Amino acid sequence: MSRTEIAALGEFGLIRRLTEKFPITNASTVKGVGDDAAILDYGTKQVLVTTDLLLEGVHFDLVYVPLKHLGYKAAVVNFSDIYAMNGRPKQITVSLGVSKRFSVEDLEQIYEGLSVACQHYGVDLVGGDTSASLTGLTISITCIGEASKDKIVLRSGAQPTDLICVTGDLGSAYMGLQLLEREKIAFSGNDQVQPDFEGKDYILQRQLKPEARKDIIETLEKAGIVPTSMMDISDGLSSELMHICSQSNTGCRVYEDKIPISYQAALMAEELNMSIVTAALNGGEDYELLFTVSINDYEKIIPLEGINIVGHITKPELGLHLIGREGEEIALQAQGWNSLQ
Amino acid sequence: MSRTEIAALGEFGLIRRLTEKFPITNASTVKGVGDDAAILDYGTKQVLVTTDLLLEGVHFDLVYVPLKHLGYKAAVVNFSDIYAMNGRPKQITVSLGVSKRFSVEDLEQIYEGLSVACQHYGVDLVGGDTSASLTGLTISITCIGEASKDKIVLRSGAQPTDLICVTGDLGSAYMGLQLLEREKIAFSGNDQVQPDFEGKDYILQRQLKPEARKDIIETLEKAGIVPTSMMDISDGLSSELMHICSQSNTGCRVYEDKIPISYQAALMAEELNMSIVTAALNGGEDYELLFTVSINDYEKIIPLEGINIVGHITKPELGLHLIGREGEEIALQAQGWNSLQ
Repeated sequence: MSRTEIAALGEFGLIRRLTEKFPITNASTVKGVGDDAAILDYGTKQVLVTTDLLLEGVHFDLVYVPLKHLGYKAAVVNFSDIYAMNGRPKQITVSLGVSKRFSVEDLEQIYEGLSVACQHYGVDLVGGDTSASLTGLTISITCIGEASKDKIVLRSGAQPTDLICVTGDLGSAYMGLQLLEREKIAFSGNDQVQPDFEGKDYILQRQLKPEARKDIIETLEKAGIVPTSMMDISDGLSSELMHICSQSNTGCRVYEDKIPISYQAALMAEELNMSIVTAALNGGEDYELLFTVSINDYEKIIPLEGINIVGHITKPELGLHLIGREGEEIALQAQGWNSLQ
Repeated sequence: MSRTEIAALGEFGLIRRLTEKFPITNASTVKGVGDDAAILDYGTKQVLVTTDLLLEGVHFDLVYVPLKHLGYKAAVVNFSDIYAMNGRPKQITVSLGVSKRFSVEDLEQIYEGLSVACQHYGVDLVGGDTSASLTGLTISITCIGEASKDKIVLRSGAQPTDLICVTGDLGSAYMGLQLLEREKIAFSGNDQVQPDFEGKDYILQRQLKPEARKDIIETLEKAGIVPTSMMDISDGLSSELMHICSQSNTGCRVYEDKIPISYQAALMAEELNMSIVTAALNGGEDYELLFTVSINDYEKIIPLEGINIVGHITKPELGLHLIGREGEEIALQAQGWNSLQ
């Protein structure tokens, strides 16, 4: 039998290859693989389902991630996928694989974080599975949410001239990770060194305790805006724009000087001699929302806090471009975080 | 901070301790932790959710488990949990954690097994997550099912004088596992030895390619029987009877000579000098159904194929007992398979 390395396909190519032959056979299945969450039709409300698998050493490093934060983040990244469909998260199941080095008290820390997240976002823990693991810690969370049939927002609805909006700021979580990695190296083998985190609380918090943009979904609803397309930014703006444009069959123009960047992230990038724009485009783990709205909603969007217009959707033949500070056109490339490469 | 070993609590004690503080806050959450599946109310139908985490080296050994069978079994064990609520599985999400030793073709084998299971049981694959793993293979599946509100069967509804029923036979999957382990040891270090599986196809199939009892759920429906309590037998009859009796606040009497045993399993037990009754009581992985019905349904149950009455429910103060072949009373003990001990 021939052997194809997984890295040769990448995450999305792999998922396509593995799942393309699966037919949809049930009336209750509205949408399967390919968006932030699946859509099921079980009555008046539509049911959204999303799932995430987090593996120690791949998605988190327990050297600097406190277990309580890990539990919080593991829940929140799933909530974010539900909000990205313009839905509301309602239930989660949590499965843990744990090796003998973890105590009951360790697991209580994880559940304490899950509990705080569930309370904050109004979500119920309804089930799960707990098992021994021969190696590291494994966390698998599935989140169920609900949405009105006419309010669900897919990745595929963007239209030429739509405005491209981004919430919060981008690249901070990535710069927080770079900082933690730097201090981990400085710390290793020398326990006299104290990590230097002064004035860097914001980027650390963005990495260790991200929030899902429940507030934005509520703001949009109050303003009477239903985005034409939406997803959350977990793999970097470039990668997510490519998903939106590919599934909507459009192009896009995004302006470098419009991309929202935090002061701390910009400073950290300078300190580490890195490009903050690259971090924003390809860094990942921001869990902000990327969405498009009709140009007719321009007046409604402008006064809303925490939302930045970064560009607009174009016809597909115009391609996907970042417009640099000097007006230069740079073709967008997806170099988003990908554990499989 | 004090350190409590996880083994000191066991799986169910651990789940209770970790989840007991989580309140139910959403109107759509009907039942959370504590049954084969959670129950959500999203309209005319009720939505069932169950999840299972399978870890290499703990739940399966790739030395003798073909990847296609692994995919099939991983799906089926989740379907079994939905049937155990008297529901019908409709959708699954599949998350995989894979290390570099796996090729795309390996993953296609797993998905081929998932696909065959989905087709056979009429279930749609609607999402998932694929990630690198530093170590072994991790499979996390969540299954969504549906049931009519008035047909859902919990573990907690058994009443004194109810008949206790078991489908199929018990202990075969465990004897299949013992056989595979024996041949693995014989095979190791000597690739001239061919595994000796003659006349043992049934117990192997029970271990490697179990089925969920969709047929029984359909049979019961046709016969107009709604069990008073039900669960699937994944950890052995003893452990499951303890769940039913504890959640229903009852006792039980089960007759050793009524426990259904297959010929091949009995033969294998003899060959290995093991007790087949112990295998049936504590072996696990049979994925048969354990359910109770009102004594008024006796006449309806008797003619149904594949269902055995093994005892009856009693008042709680009578305790949980196995009645041996000589009429002796043996207190039931849960020694079900538990990866955490």
